[in-house]
Amino acid sequence: MSPPSNIGIFDSGFGGLTVMNAIRRVLPHENIVYFGDTARLPYGNKSPETVLRYAVECSNFLLNKEIKLLVIACHTACSLALDELTSTFPLPIIGVIPPAVEELARLQRKEKIAILGTRATIASGVYQDKIREQLPHSRISAIACPLFVPLVEEGYTHHPLAEMAIQEYLRPLREEKIDAALLGCTHYPLMQALIQKELGKEVALIDPALACADKVAELLRVENLLNSQTGQPRYQFYVSDDPAKFRLLGQQFLSYPIEDVRTV
Amino acid sequence: MSPPSNIGIFDSGFGGLTVMNAIRRVLPHENIVYFGDTARLPYGNKSPETVLRYAVECSNFLLNKEIKLLVIACHTACSLALDELTSTFPLPIIGVIPPAVEELARLQRKEKIAILGTRATIASGVYQDKIREQLPHSRISAIACPLFVPLVEEGYTHHPLAEMAIQEYLRPLREEKIDAALLGCTHYPLMQALIQKELGKEVALIDPALACADKVAELLRVENLLNSQTGQPRYQFYVSDDPAKFRLLGQQFLSYPIEDVRTV
Repeated sequence: MSPPSNIGIFDSGFGGLTVMNAIRRVLPHENIVYFGDTARLPYGNKSPETVLRYAVECSNFLLNKEIKLLVIACHTACSLALDELTSTFPLPIIGVIPPAVEELARLQRKEKIAILGTRATIASGVYQDKIREQLPHSRISAIACPLFVPLVEEGYTHHPLAEMAIQEYLRPLREEKIDAALLGCTHYPLMQALIQKELGKEVALIDPALACADKVAELLRVENLLNSQTGQPRYQFYVSDDPAKFRLLGQQFLSYPIEDVRTV
Repeated sequence: MSPPSNIGIFDSGFGGLTVMNAIRRVLPHENIVYFGDTARLPYGNKSPETVLRYAVECSNFLLNKEIKLLVIACHTACSLALDELTSTFPLPIIGVIPPAVEELARLQRKEKIAILGTRATIASGVYQDKIREQLPHSRISAIACPLFVPLVEEGYTHHPLAEMAIQEYLRPLREEKIDAALLGCTHYPLMQALIQKELGKEVALIDPALACADKVAELLRVENLLNSQTGQPRYQFYVSDDPAKFRLLGQQFLSYPIEDVRTV
């Protein structure tokens, strides 16, 4: 039997496809199994206990798919379940949050930092704690932006409605003159242009998907787990709700055709 | 053993509390058991199969709570599961949709009708079919307004963001000169003031919660199922996610203190 050859990724639904996208760019020969919990999305406004339970169930599902590494692509799930999953499951686990904070720490200007995320991610305080560990003298503004996910899922990434929602949520940052903002939800990078416009071009925006992908590549290299074949990789998609909708809406997040989708 | 004395109501989450509100106004002595499936909300953008499965599970749960009548307060669940539930479960079932259509049919001006609802409700075509049965000569515009639910749940019922979303979705109605609009989702009546402003005050807005409550009262009277006690009724709330959040956000929908909330 060959060793497990897949990277497993899970998310509450579609957003994690941006993380998959980043991973397949830096690791074009790796096979990926993606699980989107579309029957129970979104996670961002649910309780810590419920999100943890869902994250464990998603992980258990992927563990039966011959994975060598598990990626928690959902920021909400990562903020509430990373520690528990790491101590429970016998394989390397990478969450989107720690690599994003490491990238933030490498910036030149990082005194005033904004974290944008779902209500559950912000309430968990995990981003705030991790940033304080690395940058104890930074000033952090943490802002929950619950309308961003539905706006993106409705395709309003460049719409005046998104612009108004961004102005509304980010108003407290106007007087702050922040140095950097962390886009702490998989959907937010799709609104990056309008967020940048509101904050000003001198503010560094961190897309955690990119930092996460680099971390995945580094870990596979260090652990000698890279796929030796250099042919076309295999991408499998599993969802808990309608595969047709996933195929359709998923294209917005993954710049690659979504074909092999199955419901579990 | 006394006969079952509760009215059972289920919804995907909070919105059904507007239906409960209407019911407790016309039937102030009835005991009510409410189930909100908050761990899996919203239903409005999920597939018919998944919504049907959830509706059956919610109904099964309430059937063990000594109910004499089941109310499907969620329009999405009603549009996708009413027939199946009615043929499966051995008790009277009232969904929000049929009473709303009956109320529409009683209007004087009803030639051009708009239905506003979630994506799943509109896609099901159930409102459209039921209206065509009663009013075969009406012209129907059916519009999915998926951002209305998150806007209401974020408290933006009177906010410029809601105003802009309403203008965006209802733009196709501007040239239509409609006679009436059906607020086909439990959350929409909370935005009624802004919807009325956009459509003009000559357009009749139908709130299905009120029609549903009248139907419930009528059925209990006809079937001789009214509660004989006239004291303070008992209200029990069950949710699948965090009871604290339900207590807090629920107040927005139910003009009554929410106390007895349990997680299942």
